[in-house]
Amino acid sequence: MTDTRINRRAALGALAATAAAPLAAPAYAQGRLRWRMATSWPGDLALLSGGAARAAANIAALSDGRIEVEVFPAGTLMGAFDVHDAVGNGDIELYHTAEYYFQGKHRAYNFFTSVPLGLLMTEQHGWLRYGGGQALWDELNAQHGVKSVACGGTGVQMGGWFEQPITSMEDFQSLTMRIPGLGGAVLRELGANTVVTPAGDIVEALFAGDINALEWVGPADDLHFGFPKLLATYMYPGFQEPGTVSAMGITKRVWDNLDDRDRLIFETAADMENSQLCSAYYGGNGLALSQMQREFGTRPTRVPDAVFDRLAETSMRVRGSVADDDDYGRRVVESFTAYQDALVDWTADSFANYFARRDARGGAYESLF
Amino acid sequence: MTDTRINRRAALGALAATAAAPLAAPAYAQGRLRWRMATSWPGDLALLSGGAARAAANIAALSDGRIEVEVFPAGTLMGAFDVHDAVGNGDIELYHTAEYYFQGKHRAYNFFTSVPLGLLMTEQHGWLRYGGGQALWDELNAQHGVKSVACGGTGVQMGGWFEQPITSMEDFQSLTMRIPGLGGAVLRELGANTVVTPAGDIVEALFAGDINALEWVGPADDLHFGFPKLLATYMYPGFQEPGTVSAMGITKRVWDNLDDRDRLIFETAADMENSQLCSAYYGGNGLALSQMQREFGTRPTRVPDAVFDRLAETSMRVRGSVADDDDYGRRVVESFTAYQDALVDWTADSFANYFARRDARGGAYESLF
Repeated sequence: MTDTRINRRAALGALAATAAAPLAAPAYAQGRLRWRMATSWPGDLALLSGGAARAAANIAALSDGRIEVEVFPAGTLMGAFDVHDAVGNGDIELYHTAEYYFQGKHRAYNFFTSVPLGLLMTEQHGWLRYGGGQALWDELNAQHGVKSVACGGTGVQMGGWFEQPITSMEDFQSLTMRIPGLGGAVLRELGANTVVTPAGDIVEALFAGDINALEWVGPADDLHFGFPKLLATYMYPGFQEPGTVSAMGITKRVWDNLDDRDRLIFETAADMENSQLCSAYYGGNGLALSQMQREFGTRPTRVPDAVFDRLAETSMRVRGSVADDDDYGRRVVESFTAYQDALVDWTADSFANYFARRDARGGAYESLF
Repeated sequence: MTDTRINRRAALGALAATAAAPLAAPAYAQGRLRWRMATSWPGDLALLSGGAARAAANIAALSDGRIEVEVFPAGTLMGAFDVHDAVGNGDIELYHTAEYYFQGKHRAYNFFTSVPLGLLMTEQHGWLRYGGGQALWDELNAQHGVKSVACGGTGVQMGGWFEQPITSMEDFQSLTMRIPGLGGAVLRELGANTVVTPAGDIVEALFAGDINALEWVGPADDLHFGFPKLLATYMYPGFQEPGTVSAMGITKRVWDNLDDRDRLIFETAADMENSQLCSAYYGGNGLALSQMQREFGTRPTRVPDAVFDRLAETSMRVRGSVADDDDYGRRVVESFTAYQDALVDWTADSFANYFARRDARGGAYESLF
C-alpha cells in the first residue's frame, strides 16, 4: 500500500497528458465512446486480469466496435486502490476490482464482495438479484458517483499461507497477515496484526518481513505468485471469503447518460464473467492444487475445529456489528442475513450433504474418481 | 411421454401453417433474422421457462432487434423431447432443453447435462471450457445437425419425492419413479422401474398411478407443481444430478452461416443464463424450502449413508460403462473423469469443508444466522 500516493500522482500525470479530449456527451452524440478501465490487479495475474480484459473486449464486440475500452492494470495508470475514487470523480470511466477494498468509505462494501461465514458466490448473486442486494449496492455507490455490478468472482477461498500450522488461538498473536475486508477485522479481534497489501506487492512484503502470513484467493493465483515456495503451511478452508464477487464499475454520470442498449452491453459483459471468470477459478484452482501437490509436495492443513469455531463466532459478531454503524449499515446486514437465513436449510440438504459425501478426504468414493 | 406423438403432429401442423416464409439465407441477406425457439418446459414453469424467454429476449436486444426470437413452450409447437430432432432438421432454429433427454442417440449426452456423483455446475462449466468438454459436445451434436452451449442450470438437485422414506435397498424394488438420465439407469440396476415423464405431465402421471415416486429439480419447482401436497417424503441429497446444465441449441447450418458478431450474441445470451438462471434457482430453492416448511410442514429426510454408498458405487460403475459404448463414449468418460480427478482435492478442501461447517444441520453456527 505504500506506493499508493506515488501511483496516484503518476495517474494524475498520465491523465493530464491524455485527457485533452473530453469524453462524455460530444463523443457519444457521434455514436462512438472511448472508455478507460483501471483494475486492481497486476497485468500478469492471469485469471482476474484476463477477466477484466475479456469484459472490456466483450463491451467492444457487443457494441460492434462503437465502444472502445482500454485496460490499465494496477500501477500503470493509478494504484490498485485508487480506482473507486477515479471512476467516481469521472477521471476514468470503468474499473474492475473487489469493492471491499473501499470499506473505509463504508463497512457495508464488504457485503457486496464477501463476508466471513457468508454466502457462496451463486448465493451472493441470488441476494443481489432477488434479495434486494443490488438496490442497496446502487444506493451506496451512488453517493460516490459510481454504478457497479458483479463481474466475476473467485469462489470459496483457501485459509491462507503461514510459516507453521495454526493449532490454537494463541497462534494468531504472532501473525502479521495480509488479509483484507472483515476477515482482517476478525483476525485483529483474535490478536493478529493485519494489512491490506495489493496483489502486486504481496511477495515483496513477504521478502521484506512486513508480513509473515497471507491469504489471497486460492491455488491458481497462489501458484502464480510462488507462495508454495515461500511459506510452508497452506490452511483450509477459508472462513473469510466464501463467495468473493469482483465488480465492474462505471462513472454514474456516464451510466445515467447511456441508452438502454449500451446499459445492456455493460451489464452483459459483466454478467458473462459471472460464468466465465468463475469457471476459470473453479477449474483452475483444482488443477493448480494438483500441480502444487506434485511439484512442491504441498499438503494443505485443515483448520482445527476448535479454531474454526472461534473464527466463525467472531465472524458472525463482526459482520453483525456493521448494523451499528448507521441506518444504511443496519439495512444491509438485515437484508443479507435474512437471505442467508432463508437459504441455510436448503444448502445444508443439497450442497453440504452432497459435497461432504462426494469429496471429503478419506471418503468412500475418492478412489473411484 | 404418452402425448409426444400427438404434440409432434400438432407441431408439424403449426409449422405448416406458419412456415410459408422461408427463413435462412434470404432473410439474413437483408440483415434481419427470425428464429423460433422450442423448449422442453411448460410455459408456466417460472424459472426454466423464464430463463429460455430471457435468453431469447437478450438475443433480440443485443442485436438491436435485428434478430427476433419467438418462444414456444413444450406442447405448443411440439413435444418436450422433439426439440433436438426439430432443430437438427432445421424445422426450427433454436431450442432450450437438457440434453440428457437425448441419451437415446448417445449416452454421452448425459455428460453435457449432469451425471451421478459428478461435477457441480460451476465445475461442469470449467470442464466444458477448460477441460475439453465443449469440443466433445460439438463433435457429438454436429452429427445431429446441432450446435449447442450451456444456457443456465439448476444446481445440486434434491433426491426426490416418495410415499415413504427410503431406508434400505429393498425399498427400491417397490418404486416406479420418474427419473431421467443415468440416474434412472442407476435405480434400474437397484431394482426400480423408471420412466422419463416430461415436466408438464408429472402430476398427471402421479394421479394416474403411473408413478409412485419422482425427482424433478428442487424446492422452487416442486412447490410450483404442488409435490409437497402429493407425496409425504422429500429425500436429500440427490446423487443423480449435482450440476445440471441446461442447453440452448441452434441448427448447425444456421450457426455455420452466422458472422462472428451474431455468434457472440448467441453465446452471450446463453452465458448470461449461466449466471441469471443459476442464481434464480440457488436463491429460489432456498426460499421455497422455507415456504414448504412453514406451509406444509415439509421436513426433508436424509438418504441413509448405507443407501447413499450403494447409490454412489452404482453411479460410478454406470457412468463408467459409457466408455464401453464406443470410442467416442470412451473419450468423453476419460476427459470428464480426468477433470473431476484433478478437482476433487480442492473441492474437498474448500467447498466441502466450508459447507459442512457453515450449514450442516445441528452445526454450531446455524442459530446465529
